[in-house]
Amino acid sequence: MARNKHHPRIKKNDRLSAKSGMPAESMVYVGKEREGKMLVKVLDYSENHLEELPIEDLSACEHYLKKDSVTWISVTGVHEAEKVEQICNIFNIHPLVQEDILNTQQRTKMEEFDKYLFVTFKRLYYSDSLKAIDTEQVSVILGHNFLLSFQETENSLFTDIIQRIQTSKGTIRQKKADYLLYRILDTAVDQYFVLIDRIGDLVADIEEETMYYPNSKTTFRIQGVKKDLQVLHKHILPMREALNRIESFSSHLIDSRNLNYFRDVYDHTYQAYDTIENHRSLLTDLMNIYFTTISNKLNQVMKVLTIISTIFMPLSFITGVFGMNFKYFPYMDHPHAYTAFWLIVLTVFGGMLIYFRRKKWF
Amino acid sequence: MARNKHHPRIKKNDRLSAKSGMPAESMVYVGKEREGKMLVKVLDYSENHLEELPIEDLSACEHYLKKDSVTWISVTGVHEAEKVEQICNIFNIHPLVQEDILNTQQRTKMEEFDKYLFVTFKRLYYSDSLKAIDTEQVSVILGHNFLLSFQETENSLFTDIIQRIQTSKGTIRQKKADYLLYRILDTAVDQYFVLIDRIGDLVADIEEETMYYPNSKTTFRIQGVKKDLQVLHKHILPMREALNRIESFSSHLIDSRNLNYFRDVYDHTYQAYDTIENHRSLLTDLMNIYFTTISNKLNQVMKVLTIISTIFMPLSFITGVFGMNFKYFPYMDHPHAYTAFWLIVLTVFGGMLIYFRRKKWF
Amino acid sequence: MARNKHHPRIKKNDRLSAKSGMPAESMVYVGKEREGKMLVKVLDYSENHLEELPIEDLSACEHYLKKDSVTWISVTGVHEAEKVEQICNIFNIHPLVQEDILNTQQRTKMEEFDKYLFVTFKRLYYSDSLKAIDTEQVSVILGHNFLLSFQETENSLFTDIIQRIQTSKGTIRQKKADYLLYRILDTAVDQYFVLIDRIGDLVADIEEETMYYPNSKTTFRIQGVKKDLQVLHKHILPMREALNRIESFSSHLIDSRNLNYFRDVYDHTYQAYDTIENHRSLLTDLMNIYFTTISNKLNQVMKVLTIISTIFMPLSFITGVFGMNFKYFPYMDHPHAYTAFWLIVLTVFGGMLIYFRRKKWF
Amino acid sequence: MARNKHHPRIKKNDRLSAKSGMPAESMVYVGKEREGKMLVKVLDYSENHLEELPIEDLSACEHYLKKDSVTWISVTGVHEAEKVEQICNIFNIHPLVQEDILNTQQRTKMEEFDKYLFVTFKRLYYSDSLKAIDTEQVSVILGHNFLLSFQETENSLFTDIIQRIQTSKGTIRQKKADYLLYRILDTAVDQYFVLIDRIGDLVADIEEETMYYPNSKTTFRIQGVKKDLQVLHKHILPMREALNRIESFSSHLIDSRNLNYFRDVYDHTYQAYDTIENHRSLLTDLMNIYFTTISNKLNQVMKVLTIISTIFMPLSFITGVFGMNFKYFPYMDHPHAYTAFWLIVLTVFGGMLIYFRRKKWF
Amino acid sequence: MARNKHHPRIKKNDRLSAKSGMPAESMVYVGKEREGKMLVKVLDYSENHLEELPIEDLSACEHYLKKDSVTWISVTGVHEAEKVEQICNIFNIHPLVQEDILNTQQRTKMEEFDKYLFVTFKRLYYSDSLKAIDTEQVSVILGHNFLLSFQETENSLFTDIIQRIQTSKGTIRQKKADYLLYRILDTAVDQYFVLIDRIGDLVADIEEETMYYPNSKTTFRIQGVKKDLQVLHKHILPMREALNRIESFSSHLIDSRNLNYFRDVYDHTYQAYDTIENHRSLLTDLMNIYFTTISNKLNQVMKVLTIISTIFMPLSFITGVFGMNFKYFPYMDHPHAYTAFWLIVLTVFGGMLIYFRRKKWF
Repeated sequence: MARNKHHPRIKKNDRLSAKSGMPAESMVYVGKEREGKMLVKVLDYSENHLEELPIEDLSACEHYLKKDSVTWISVTGVHEAEKVEQICNIFNIHPLVQEDILNTQQRTKMEEFDKYLFVTFKRLYYSDSLKAIDTEQVSVILGHNFLLSFQETENSLFTDIIQRIQTSKGTIRQKKADYLLYRILDTAVDQYFVLIDRIGDLVADIEEETMYYPNSKTTFRIQGVKKDLQVLHKHILPMREALNRIESFSSHLIDSRNLNYFRDVYDHTYQAYDTIENHRSLLTDLMNIYFTTISNKLNQVMKVLTIISTIFMPLSFITGVFGMNFKYFPYMDHPHAYTAFWLIVLTVFGGMLIYFRRKKWF
Repeated sequence: MARNKHHPRIKKNDRLSAKSGMPAESMVYVGKEREGKMLVKVLDYSENHLEELPIEDLSACEHYLKKDSVTWISVTGVHEAEKVEQICNIFNIHPLVQEDILNTQQRTKMEEFDKYLFVTFKRLYYSDSLKAIDTEQVSVILGHNFLLSFQETENSLFTDIIQRIQTSKGTIRQKKADYLLYRILDTAVDQYFVLIDRIGDLVADIEEETMYYPNSKTTFRIQGVKKDLQVLHKHILPMREALNRIESFSSHLIDSRNLNYFRDVYDHTYQAYDTIENHRSLLTDLMNIYFTTISNKLNQVMKVLTIISTIFMPLSFITGVFGMNFKYFPYMDHPHAYTAFWLIVLTVFGGMLIYFRRKKWF
Repeated sequence: MARNKHHPRIKKNDRLSAKSGMPAESMVYVGKEREGKMLVKVLDYSENHLEELPIEDLSACEHYLKKDSVTWISVTGVHEAEKVEQICNIFNIHPLVQEDILNTQQRTKMEEFDKYLFVTFKRLYYSDSLKAIDTEQVSVILGHNFLLSFQETENSLFTDIIQRIQTSKGTIRQKKADYLLYRILDTAVDQYFVLIDRIGDLVADIEEETMYYPNSKTTFRIQGVKKDLQVLHKHILPMREALNRIESFSSHLIDSRNLNYFRDVYDHTYQAYDTIENHRSLLTDLMNIYFTTISNKLNQVMKVLTIISTIFMPLSFITGVFGMNFKYFPYMDHPHAYTAFWLIVLTVFGGMLIYFRRKKWF
Repeated sequence: MARNKHHPRIKKNDRLSAKSGMPAESMVYVGKEREGKMLVKVLDYSENHLEELPIEDLSACEHYLKKDSVTWISVTGVHEAEKVEQICNIFNIHPLVQEDILNTQQRTKMEEFDKYLFVTFKRLYYSDSLKAIDTEQVSVILGHNFLLSFQETENSLFTDIIQRIQTSKGTIRQKKADYLLYRILDTAVDQYFVLIDRIGDLVADIEEETMYYPNSKTTFRIQGVKKDLQVLHKHILPMREALNRIESFSSHLIDSRNLNYFRDVYDHTYQAYDTIENHRSLLTDLMNIYFTTISNKLNQVMKVLTIISTIFMPLSFITGVFGMNFKYFPYMDHPHAYTAFWLIVLTVFGGMLIYFRRKKWF
Repeated sequence: MARNKHHPRIKKNDRLSAKSGMPAESMVYVGKEREGKMLVKVLDYSENHLEELPIEDLSACEHYLKKDSVTWISVTGVHEAEKVEQICNIFNIHPLVQEDILNTQQRTKMEEFDKYLFVTFKRLYYSDSLKAIDTEQVSVILGHNFLLSFQETENSLFTDIIQRIQTSKGTIRQKKADYLLYRILDTAVDQYFVLIDRIGDLVADIEEETMYYPNSKTTFRIQGVKKDLQVLHKHILPMREALNRIESFSSHLIDSRNLNYFRDVYDHTYQAYDTIENHRSLLTDLMNIYFTTISNKLNQVMKVLTIISTIFMPLSFITGVFGMNFKYFPYMDHPHAYTAFWLIVLTVFGGMLIYFRRKKWF
């Protein structure tokens, strides 16, 4: 059985063991090969003040540490391990956290440290080139009046937030860094909903297809969407867990008056999770319905075909009888024998049809 | 395979991401397009006093805040975002709560704030136009001697309660706003039971159909009811969770002597949940029984048809034998050859019938 | 497809929403229509004293409230709502509890109030008229040295206990009302075991049937027993939960020295639950085995039939060959042609038989 | 369909309700009918001293209660209810515990009382006569320097322990009664592993059978082992739970330095449980694989048979054509007509074979 | 049905009851038969000092107990029970721990003792000789500034760590023994990921195979990978549980500043667990898809074959009709009768083809 060369290749899983054998805590970038330079940008703001500039000399960050305003240092591209290390060291970030930032196959998690809160999660988006859901890791460190963010490529996640800070719309300029963290997480979860809606449409399409014109590709479509849902589930579940624990943090980093905001994001992840689970259970049901519909259709066909065969079996037997070559064959010479033959045939044919119909066999 | 245009379209899912990309906390109505004006009505009562009037100028609400009697401000239609915002601001409601009231795709939840308790849930009813279960969001804010309610359209949920307040029947006029909240939740859960009973009848119907006259539509019916149960499950489960947590609230808003009432509603949601789970598990069993029954029936038919074919195969062979044109064909000229032929045929026919019957093949 | 009128009707579910739309806490009987008068009986006892009498004037109950002996007021028939209300009011029972007593579709539960403990559960028994498990609600209120019991009809649940009190057998006369409650719950759970044993026998029967002589009714029997188990599960699970929580009650109503007794009943419900789960899982396995056995049998038959057909196909072809009317037909005139024909037929027949047998096809 | 009398009868379940209707706490033996006398043996030991004797007069036990050495009173045969009651009363055992000892269908449990710890569990062994796993109840009461054990028949469970005490091997003589309890539980769990290993071999056998030579008995074998695993699961799970709670006991009866021993037994039950679950999940997979393999085999056969039939259908048609009796039948008189016929037949035959082969249909 | 001798034998399970019947705490090696001598090596280091030597006289270990530097005593080969006992006694290790070290079928666990922490787990690797995942037990005892490790054979687990200590790279030389424990666990979990990646590739391969060229070996491959995943699951789950509990240990043995490291390993086990579960659920889906694809293919073939048969049935009947030997057979002598026959045949043939095509039967 030769390999069919024309089907799309199943994507191999990412190397989870890429760092295996390397010394732990070694600052090595684990992820897709990236080109381009790493960008570091500072956004320093308070209610009445806004400063925004790219940074070349990383040690310049230190200056903002002492300021009272909110400082957002956004790093785009984390493949230059030494630079990431350099920034992190300025802010006294634990080596394990640095390692987590560089390893872009991290599970979503939120960890509380003495002086900062570390959050790493995945930005999920539909990649037009891959024709599949793709992920990018975003890591955020929330400290006292500063926030460090690390993303793999420049993307839409932060654009809107930056714009709002620039135009001073909404409450964001009046609030502290914890509110900024909330806005980032909220935007990420909103992007999950975009995917869930996209999948919701697909599921409705597939439901229609399964019920009214199932075909041999239906299983593949169902399975495809199921895998997408698995990806979403894999990233939303730990996000939900992390947000659920946020209230139990003894952290002075998040103002208790702002906990409501995080609880709100938590509610959204819960809703996302619910919707995903509903889609999954519906798809499983659809798979079963697909099987029945397909099998019912086929069985219907086979039954009709078999009925046709079965009706002609005795008829052929009758022609066989009259085709025999006995010398003494009664009635063979009778002038109405041929007519009688057709009467017999029609009687048998009709009788079987009526019998089968009565038995509701077709 | 052309698309069949005549089947009902599968309803696309609601847009969960409708607000995505918009600034968080922006007061935007997310829901079906609604017409008509928003109605605000005040019902102010104590044991001996009752005041009921529609409100045009929203600032008039402020007057009731200071009064000692129970004030119920009922808002019908939440699509006018600014007005909702205006009312909420009078009562000092958190922006996130305002957002939740306007977004009618909220998950059922109960949240405790400093000065009020926020509950949002779904009214479930059978929509005759949709021929399906439809939902409407109801949000309630319980404050110290006031209650704000927000519903999408004027509906039956509040009618009975309002009437009881007007006619001063029952204990409702003697009790405070927390009792009013209980009555609203209790009525909502009662309406769930109306739907569960309706589904219970359907399930019994389907059980009868599956067991005694299964047909090709049975899977669709089972699947349809399963989806209805999923809708109910989706809304009742968080309701149950919310009610379960009510006792742990440190809230001074609910009189501890009235906790029994809420526990009673909790018991009802538990019973509703149980019943739904039982229906679901029964439907799963029915699906399996349907498959067996259908498959048993078909197999029975196929077996009988195959037996008929199998019996005629050797008979046809015999006629074939006597139809051959050998010049030297023994017994062909024998006067009883034809009779002998029929004896052979009948012996083979009868022998096979008896053999198959003994083997219990039909 | 006309409805078959001769099968047993599937019982419609009880109306869970019977009270929907009615004012909450309204004292309305919800249950089967009952005839006959409500009976109230008092049994007042201490170690050395016993008083037993029917009560007509309900206010006479009040007298017993003040006595130090154990007073058991047993109410049979709860369809006269006003009388139930009257008795409850004498003992200061909360309106919600009264409502629960009257609504005979209550979920099993145990609730702690200030001055009493409320338990409602189902008596389960095999109804010979229904040919199914039937339920009756029993509600018990345990107060300080009194116990109120409410049952739908006069039944076997209390008979033995009453007799033991009358004949002063066992420790029951020396103990307080809490021990009486234990005896009632213990008897109820014992009656569950009677049903479980009955079902255990059925399951063993069905196992035998499934394995050795499966027939078209087997699925129905399996499904029937599964539904019975579901009924039992539905009532035993909350009973177990309730008994599990009894130790955490701060209640002074149950003597801590008697907690062992309740823990013993809890152990029994646990065992009952285990047995039910085992039966359920066994029935699911049996369903699968049934399917395989049936399908294996049928496949065996179909294979043999198809083999017969397949063997006769080439034989018929051979007769067809010799039945052709070519003018120049070699060997047709040969005197041994006919014998040769049979040799060919036997060779083909035998060859195919041997081939199929070697391939282990039959 | 007559009952086949020759298959083994499915064992009816034990009567769980045997005591139903009897007064609770009544001392009645519930179990298999036993013959033979009950044996009571005392083993009194300390590091330097050993006394071992059978007891006829039960009141002699009292003497040992006051001694400082470890006293093990081992009762074999619990069908003489009065004697069991008598012994228990000497040691002040609660009536409910006495009842549990006598009822040999008790669920495994461990209960803490003021002055003693009560453990009841099942000894599991493969019964050669039953050809199945059989159980025997063992109840142990651990008091301050005494241990009472109750078993149904004389068996291997205690033999090794007694021997070790007699020969003074190991640490057992230096330790107290709590260590003795540990040794009994450890031995019981070791015996579970003997069964698990036996089943493990069976599972490996069945795996081989399923994969390489599945036959009609395979389902029965799989189901049989599944039931054995269910029995083991039923008894090991509560054992694990009981051992897990032992650390939370406030009991002064178990020396905290010996808790490690019990935790070790707990680990073993955990491992046993894991292994059982793995076997169960493997068997479920095997059942599925069995179905596919069987069904694949059958389908292969059916396909080949159908292909043979299908090839001969057109061939028979051709012979039919040439067998027709038209007066004007072109080429019928041609001298090569017969040869042409065979060429046509071979062409059709070969063509179909090649076509089917190309389509990979066989 | 004779046993096929050529298939690979299913590996019998390891003897879990190997020690059954033996006295508990008896120091007996339970595992594969090993050859070769046991090796004991000491690695004593602090930031500035390193001593590494093999030990022959085990009592030499005592010397290191008193030193302040970190002492790692690594034992390779645990089949010499007495030597293991000897070393453990020097470090005052509890007999149960010694037993666990010798019994190489231990479940992964972590236990806290007064003066040390005991961890036992499995090293998982792909054995080229077995062509399957193989396990080796590693036991580690962490004491105050010493660490004892026991492994079955010399392997890659420790090589890298030892090298790092020797070359003084990384932080390992500056840290205490708890960090060494972390490094060992981290390396073990990294090796799990190597296997998970290997399996991930297999799963992607199988997915491709299932979807595009399913064959009769696919089930076996799926089942094989499922069993591998079960092995991984069995060992990773208790590892995760153990690491999760590490924070709740009151242990002074692990510096609270190093807890982050262990939490990091915990995160990795969580991720490993997630990946395994995803693979498992994907394989289950693939099994279902395999069944459908196979069954769809077969059904397609059967349908086409049956259609061919069904078309030839009436055609054969027609030849049968014209092959009859009636004396008075109308039109039989007609010169165009033969042509008419073919017209009828073609009409029937074409008509059926068109009808079946219209019905979308092929």
